[in-house]
Amino acid sequence: MKLPLGYRYGSTYAGIRKEKRDDLGLIISTTQASCAAAFTLNRVQAAPVRLARRHLRDSGGVARAVLVNAGNANCATKTGLGVALACCRAVAKKLRIPVNQVLPASTGVIGVELDASLIVKSVPRLVRGLSENGFADVSKAIMTTDRIPKVAFGEVPLSRGLVRIAGMAKGAGMIHPNMATMLSFIMTDAEISPRNLQAILCKGLERSFHRLSVDGDMSTNDTVVLLANGASGIKPNVKERMVFEEVLAWVMQDLAEMIARDGEGARKKITIHVVGAADEGAARRIARAIANSPLVKTAIAGADPNWGRILSAAGASGVAFDPSMVDIQMQGEWVCRSGLAAQFSEAELKQKLHSSDCLIRFVIRGKGPGETSFWTCDLTEEYVRINASYRT
Amino acid sequence: MKLPLGYRYGSTYAGIRKEKRDDLGLIISTTQASCAAAFTLNRVQAAPVRLARRHLRDSGGVARAVLVNAGNANCATKTGLGVALACCRAVAKKLRIPVNQVLPASTGVIGVELDASLIVKSVPRLVRGLSENGFADVSKAIMTTDRIPKVAFGEVPLSRGLVRIAGMAKGAGMIHPNMATMLSFIMTDAEISPRNLQAILCKGLERSFHRLSVDGDMSTNDTVVLLANGASGIKPNVKERMVFEEVLAWVMQDLAEMIARDGEGARKKITIHVVGAADEGAARRIARAIANSPLVKTAIAGADPNWGRILSAAGASGVAFDPSMVDIQMQGEWVCRSGLAAQFSEAELKQKLHSSDCLIRFVIRGKGPGETSFWTCDLTEEYVRINASYRT
Repeated sequence: MKLPLGYRYGSTYAGIRKEKRDDLGLIISTTQASCAAAFTLNRVQAAPVRLARRHLRDSGGVARAVLVNAGNANCATKTGLGVALACCRAVAKKLRIPVNQVLPASTGVIGVELDASLIVKSVPRLVRGLSENGFADVSKAIMTTDRIPKVAFGEVPLSRGLVRIAGMAKGAGMIHPNMATMLSFIMTDAEISPRNLQAILCKGLERSFHRLSVDGDMSTNDTVVLLANGASGIKPNVKERMVFEEVLAWVMQDLAEMIARDGEGARKKITIHVVGAADEGAARRIARAIANSPLVKTAIAGADPNWGRILSAAGASGVAFDPSMVDIQMQGEWVCRSGLAAQFSEAELKQKLHSSDCLIRFVIRGKGPGETSFWTCDLTEEYVRINASYRT
Repeated sequence: MKLPLGYRYGSTYAGIRKEKRDDLGLIISTTQASCAAAFTLNRVQAAPVRLARRHLRDSGGVARAVLVNAGNANCATKTGLGVALACCRAVAKKLRIPVNQVLPASTGVIGVELDASLIVKSVPRLVRGLSENGFADVSKAIMTTDRIPKVAFGEVPLSRGLVRIAGMAKGAGMIHPNMATMLSFIMTDAEISPRNLQAILCKGLERSFHRLSVDGDMSTNDTVVLLANGASGIKPNVKERMVFEEVLAWVMQDLAEMIARDGEGARKKITIHVVGAADEGAARRIARAIANSPLVKTAIAGADPNWGRILSAAGASGVAFDPSMVDIQMQGEWVCRSGLAAQFSEAELKQKLHSSDCLIRFVIRGKGPGETSFWTCDLTEEYVRINASYRT
């Protein structure tokens, strides 16, 4: 699949992380792009998040470049804003663009000062290395505890031709609605106004990253950026925008599911499907309670069809429902009917739960139209091992 | 310390759990006792919880006996209510007391039918074995994944003499405000009306079990029962009731802290102290968010002074605060001042964090009077190991 037109990508090792692999990435649009973004709702917001917000406001929702580093979150740092600004300035100067058209993003450890000079002096090298084919390299440079780079692509056939979408994401732990230590950059060559683009992004988030939880923690640095540079020369009309929205949501969903699968220490992606709640919000609260239950997540890790924990987690979600109207399915097998144990072969189901894809369906019988899908992963000893020693 | 007067305790092996150790306990008061209780807020409530609620209402808040089993939660079972009732009836008949003065409680696996006959046929043996000194045996019979039995005692010196309090509890995983898979039975020989007793219990809960979280999960079976049989012949007056309340809260707090320390797989008890929030509710929301953060809990497991995770967890609590007004202390050491890294010796603090008691102080500078203490434990690989294989 071809990448969207009019973008260049570069990455390099700036010396921010100890391990010598690329920790700095740059994405640029060759022309001014409409830009939409969403950020963490954490009360504690990293300097790059605050600066990106400000730049986006000052530029009126256009951008030329995204500068991203791994290895240091530049959060709870004395010099935070100054450092983020200095880095953006270095890029702006080199590319001869306004500084507010450069959006910064960072991921890594919190509370450690980030040395701006490491980044500033790498910018010339980074810019020299920009190429149409650097997409995969940037997706690798932003990885922290991720085991695999996460990229997804889409094409939208419109009456006047194709527009393309390409997205990358990082994030493996601390993922929680709404989007924790999650970075995602999505590029399209469609022409869409900043205002419409923001609405489209919000809809996409509702169907993707906002339905994702790895460990219930929400970070200080989450950032999703969507750029639309119009390099295809095609501007979707109102009707076509809905097709675009749909494909964008798929791309974002792909990225979200990849993050769930690559949850820290995870061996399994878990999809939770809730049906029959009063409304979508109620369905999501139930799904999230199941997704965040360590008891459910460890049971799946152990391939244990322990549906009692699923029922109990849902019961603790705060959503009112009648347990005797609940059916639960695991891997397509009914394990609970009307709130009671169903007949099933424990040995066979255990076998099915060894799959790397686990599906839990939670059905409230009745007339409620509320439905959702939600993604998480199993909780393994490896998660603990990683997080007990991540920093030191 | 002497036990409260007028209680008898017994335990036996009824064959509910596979492993051959006592799984059935009985606590009786030799005379009618005032009874207060609190139950899980989970939408899914086990049969014994529903029946205990009904008995308490029908008896007008008096009770003579608590019948408790481990090994099976009698929850999400077809025969649940009938089984619980049959068991209570067997006790009532043997002791010649009204059935609604017997409160049932169960803990164990969900969704597996409980065979009433196992319990019913054990009741005569259980009653024969009742003794003043069986307190410790019952505290052991109710253990599931607990590593240690949990008991606590108090004496309240009043103008007319001493009244005594003795409490036991079980619970190691799935502990979360408000009280999950937690059973606690507290006996006193003070004379207190059912109505006053309920008010006293609620205040005690606010200072103990409602400030406790092991893994954020809330069970279907949580039950706290407080019996006051007046066997001391002493009825605290209004003023003395406050002294009684205080000692009861200490006893309950002791039990709560023991549960935190004995959290599944835990090696460390963590106390989280929040100061300077707008009110007590805000303080508790922050404390709970820190207590429930897997990233904070794994950092403590790894003796890693990763205060950024504490700040981030608090920021995700939904409580508004200014990060630049936050100071954080770990083991008495300032690790964060005004939202920024403080100067501290990482090696020394790491050493201190190897303690089995960890203290996190989260201070919001300003005039807020909201303050709380909250207990949890570290998250270890052992937690995952236990819960990936508990059922099968």
